[in-house]
Amino acid sequence: MERPIAFMQRDAALAEARNLRTKIRRGEFQDATSGYASGLAQGNVVILPKNWADDFLLFCQKNPIACPLLAVSLPGQPLLDALGDDIDIRSDVPEYRVFRHGEFTKETQDISDLWRADMVTFVLGCSFSFEDALMRAGLSLRNIESQSNVSMYKTNIPANPSQHFSGNLVVSMRPFTPADAIRAIQITSRLPKSHGAPIHFGNPEMIGISDISSPDFGDPVTIKDDEIPVFWACGVTPQLAIANARPPIAITHAPGKMLVTDISTEQLSIL
Amino acid sequence: MERPIAFMQRDAALAEARNLRTKIRRGEFQDATSGYASGLAQGNVVILPKNWADDFLLFCQKNPIACPLLAVSLPGQPLLDALGDDIDIRSDVPEYRVFRHGEFTKETQDISDLWRADMVTFVLGCSFSFEDALMRAGLSLRNIESQSNVSMYKTNIPANPSQHFSGNLVVSMRPFTPADAIRAIQITSRLPKSHGAPIHFGNPEMIGISDISSPDFGDPVTIKDDEIPVFWACGVTPQLAIANARPPIAITHAPGKMLVTDISTEQLSIL
Repeated sequence: MERPIAFMQRDAALAEARNLRTKIRRGEFQDATSGYASGLAQGNVVILPKNWADDFLLFCQKNPIACPLLAVSLPGQPLLDALGDDIDIRSDVPEYRVFRHGEFTKETQDISDLWRADMVTFVLGCSFSFEDALMRAGLSLRNIESQSNVSMYKTNIPANPSQHFSGNLVVSMRPFTPADAIRAIQITSRLPKSHGAPIHFGNPEMIGISDISSPDFGDPVTIKDDEIPVFWACGVTPQLAIANARPPIAITHAPGKMLVTDISTEQLSIL
Repeated sequence: MERPIAFMQRDAALAEARNLRTKIRRGEFQDATSGYASGLAQGNVVILPKNWADDFLLFCQKNPIACPLLAVSLPGQPLLDALGDDIDIRSDVPEYRVFRHGEFTKETQDISDLWRADMVTFVLGCSFSFEDALMRAGLSLRNIESQSNVSMYKTNIPANPSQHFSGNLVVSMRPFTPADAIRAIQITSRLPKSHGAPIHFGNPEMIGISDISSPDFGDPVTIKDDEIPVFWACGVTPQLAIANARPPIAITHAPGKMLVTDISTEQLSIL
């Protein structure tokens, strides 16, 4: 008897995720991970020493929409069993960025030489999961249509600070017609581990964005006459907070080059 | 042992609903029902002869957002047990309107003299239930703040026609800030039997409304600078379709004077 299609699709996605992580570990894949292993969650990665990690955990707890935690490791534990089979955070991300005292110092494909017994890994949900859900629901995403990076903006909305980590929220923007925006709000409300519902739509100036055509990160996209911009909290928020906090060392993924997990978006969805 | 508060509130609402229906039946209450029996669903009422009712049922089935059916009676059956204790549709609505060949002829407090063995009653969910849910969630409703009727507009969006019933959708409008609009979309998505999620927000012209300050039904309300208008499908849609179809007789409730049921909004909610 054949397996149901839903199981076969899941098996194929899991096989693709594991195969991709193996290639990444061997240095055979260093590209952006968008579009790979459809239906499985991808994560933003932040690695901090234990004496900074506790306060960063508090920052995430106080800002769950911008910083939805998928996993936090014990100090010095590089294997993330909770997120998938044989994930080693020292080698399984296509590209890492190393920051010292808040300043970018280098990109690298493997951080084994930087690993220490006090390193704590945070994996945060990212918007790739909700973009996948929006496309499955038949909505078009301008950034994917135009093969560009999503537009991201600094806002004037302060994140809730912890002792050391603070800064304003960063948002990603996708244009939709009002009817599609209503549908997108319904769909992303189900996905709190991928930033959940939007935090704003319409007038950019209401959240401190003076020029919608000049994003602070990513690429600009066209907003058509019958569309309005819809804004979601974005995983760049913790990166800005880390730059503000200036810890002696912090390691993150390179933008768009995420940790691909074995956890399905549906496993993380609510309702 | 005392009963839990949730049960006590429900008991009080049910007692209020039954007491109100008794007063209405005795001719002691002829006012609008908004605000009574909070938490219980109220319904739009349409009564048609059987030879028109089948096609109206099809119209409702094809337009579930504008015409969410709570109950349909058998021909000639005036008791609506499915909606509450001892409901007699001939006497338990504060005011009825009688239409002949699509034209309004009179208002009355009792339709026993018009009742026939072929009369079929339709009860359709109304927006009072979702307004109650929005207020419980802490949102303010301009029409309730300003003690005016909600603003309603004819759109250029055609309803799906049945054989005899057709017309454009009518929408109700409530202004919200974008953040509150997002919350309102989440809350009303749970209530498909009260028109569900909005069908549009923002630019009124996109749905054929040329002057937002002049509603076709109800009263105008102020839209503040930081607010956008949010539009829900409205129970006036079937009334326009009936006017277009011109059946020899049709009986409806008078605007704002609804059938108060024993069914809680939570019983009808999804998710």
